[in-house]
Amino acid sequence: MRIQKKKVKLSCIKAAPRTPKGDHFMLDVATARARILANIPFCGQETTPLNMACGRILAQDLPARRANPPVAVSAMDGYAARVEDTHPGAVLHVVGEAPAGHPSGLEVGRGECLRIFTGSQVPAGADTIVIQENVTREGEYVTLSQAGKAGQFIRARGQDFNQGDVLLHAGRKLGPRDIGLAAAGGHVWLPTARRPRVGILATGDEITLPGDPIAESGVFNSAAFMVSALLEQAGADPVLLPVARDTTASLTRSLTQARQLDMLVTIGGASVGTYDLVRSTLDDVGLELDFWKIAMRPGKPLLSGRLGHTPVIGLPGNPVAALVCSIVFVAPAIHTMMGLSVPAQPATEPAILACAVRENDERQDFLRATLIEAPLGGLPEVTPFARQDSAQLNILAQSQALVVRPPNAPAQDAGTACRMIRLP
Amino acid sequence: MRIQKKKVKLSCIKAAPRTPKGDHFMLDVATARARILANIPFCGQETTPLNMACGRILAQDLPARRANPPVAVSAMDGYAARVEDTHPGAVLHVVGEAPAGHPSGLEVGRGECLRIFTGSQVPAGADTIVIQENVTREGEYVTLSQAGKAGQFIRARGQDFNQGDVLLHAGRKLGPRDIGLAAAGGHVWLPTARRPRVGILATGDEITLPGDPIAESGVFNSAAFMVSALLEQAGADPVLLPVARDTTASLTRSLTQARQLDMLVTIGGASVGTYDLVRSTLDDVGLELDFWKIAMRPGKPLLSGRLGHTPVIGLPGNPVAALVCSIVFVAPAIHTMMGLSVPAQPATEPAILACAVRENDERQDFLRATLIEAPLGGLPEVTPFARQDSAQLNILAQSQALVVRPPNAPAQDAGTACRMIRLP
Repeated sequence: MRIQKKKVKLSCIKAAPRTPKGDHFMLDVATARARILANIPFCGQETTPLNMACGRILAQDLPARRANPPVAVSAMDGYAARVEDTHPGAVLHVVGEAPAGHPSGLEVGRGECLRIFTGSQVPAGADTIVIQENVTREGEYVTLSQAGKAGQFIRARGQDFNQGDVLLHAGRKLGPRDIGLAAAGGHVWLPTARRPRVGILATGDEITLPGDPIAESGVFNSAAFMVSALLEQAGADPVLLPVARDTTASLTRSLTQARQLDMLVTIGGASVGTYDLVRSTLDDVGLELDFWKIAMRPGKPLLSGRLGHTPVIGLPGNPVAALVCSIVFVAPAIHTMMGLSVPAQPATEPAILACAVRENDERQDFLRATLIEAPLGGLPEVTPFARQDSAQLNILAQSQALVVRPPNAPAQDAGTACRMIRLP
Repeated sequence: MRIQKKKVKLSCIKAAPRTPKGDHFMLDVATARARILANIPFCGQETTPLNMACGRILAQDLPARRANPPVAVSAMDGYAARVEDTHPGAVLHVVGEAPAGHPSGLEVGRGECLRIFTGSQVPAGADTIVIQENVTREGEYVTLSQAGKAGQFIRARGQDFNQGDVLLHAGRKLGPRDIGLAAAGGHVWLPTARRPRVGILATGDEITLPGDPIAESGVFNSAAFMVSALLEQAGADPVLLPVARDTTASLTRSLTQARQLDMLVTIGGASVGTYDLVRSTLDDVGLELDFWKIAMRPGKPLLSGRLGHTPVIGLPGNPVAALVCSIVFVAPAIHTMMGLSVPAQPATEPAILACAVRENDERQDFLRATLIEAPLGGLPEVTPFARQDSAQLNILAQSQALVVRPPNAPAQDAGTACRMIRLP
């Protein structure tokens, strides 16, 4: 089965008139994710050499080009013989030998055997392998200590797979064992999903690249590097666009250059402040807005839309919010673009709260937390950090999980159940 | 702390005289792993740019080069004011504005405020932020609807981290969040462990590269590609050496070229058959053998030693055995070489057997199995495949776990507890 290029039905809601103060509607997280994923096209296929394909997504079913093993082979070092000749004390004539890769062409007759090794082709006439531990050899003769069984220590032709068997299915993320299976099936070049080129556009006059001269109150660009690393792990080929300044001219220049990318991710400037120009500039260059603002903490000012054929996701400028939104929305969008099947909702796991948490407001909360595994398969314990400020990179790096709290969840005591996303 | 180059104390046991048939001693898996890991040197350090460092192992502690935030900044869009001036109905004079990255240089006096935005430096004189949702602005004046609190919506200087704080410790595998933290701390170049160059030497006259012309009984080289992919995932830079033929001359040539590699992994030829020449050729070129043959299934003919300064691990030729031994021995050796802390024994997890298993012999067994997660944090269920032949790549690729059975384990019924290694 070939992955069909998904029909992109963009039922985009045109940007509402710019009335930020009155625009209090926030989309819920589940709907936001579903709408983003529904609008992501397949990124296309490329040919990848076997030894560079680990971690890539297979784009077509992969049939075996030959059987494995291609002929009946021995599973052990020993002697190929006829089962009716094998009994304790039997003496067989060794008519030759056949190392693996060097079939003898001989046929084993009555009272005869052939010296063979693991992987050697089983010669005609033979239907059992007597392992070398069970014979005593003298010159051209072996004396057997045990009877054999028909088929014993023989790997039948096609025991692993036959020609034409589908070894791996489209949409599979290839691991080392898949690479081995594809190799055994005779494949050199694998049809894989292309790595989507994703532009990452950080914005803001206060943002400086690490190592560049910085003002006393300037901050180093951390969100773009963090999002870039996450999306690279997710399978994308990130393009770090030059940081855009807080002017319409600078933003317009950056956005115009993004139209040939598979996806554009902006960071910052999507809030309601006078200097948050990303949203208005996106409108000016022709963004088809799907939604803006979601009921999520961190991550309220999330934007989704399309610029020409390029899906655009606008992330909040706070680095923690940018990262959490990348986990919940952008990485799944990359996966979808490569043909991986992605759950409609983020895969959460059950856990136990190790401390009490307060009641939640109308935004779905993603609390940074540490995690302790249960020793015997019980639920892991999670402890949300007391400080949940979305500028705290140190706490983010120390976190092992995000505790997901639904909108308006009541206060909970220590020891109660919760759901969490494990951080990789 | 700088990672110290580990003192390599090789208490190698010189190769025993070649008496394969009498040589029945098999080392247990735990001792074999401990001895391999004890003899692995640190591979050395290199300088990696920030945007290429995700997934690498940090080789030195990383101190912050400046505080984050570097000055007190606003966490919201609003007005910086003096807390004693803020009460419902208060009217404040807006003396100016300061977008993020553009400090005003103004001081906020009594009855005054400054328009600021998320990330803006908090001006001198101000000790609270009144968020814009809580004011009505008319011209140069704002009327407040609520009282403020001292420090409210202000991120103090160094709230995330201070200059000199250790952000990340040596030996840490860097993830996206760590990259963000390093960036925020002002780092462009990260001290990382070098990717060890690991030679992978497949041997055997029956082995053909996928795509090359192949004899009827020939098999495509799958193990080398599988091991290469696994070791690349583990952090190594694999070097696929040309397949060596079953002649002393071919093997000697390949082995001689391996001395400048960080590690050499051979595949096949380490058994006891007449054509299993790897072990004897390794002896000839000066291998210091540590051990050969372990009590493990699959994987009995495992070899460990050193060729000059290069650690050598000899894997069995059966692809499944080669992969399982790579998981249990080689990947942890790569990790150790890069300064990652590695558990003495493979990290197993508890699980429940979904079917009965027979009693085990003297070899530790690693059964290929499927795995079903428990819905509510209970133990996952594992089902070993009926066929455990070590040439079955198809079953290997379908497996999700290795059920680990200790030597001489008794028969077990369905529903009893076991230990397993999750396959990635």
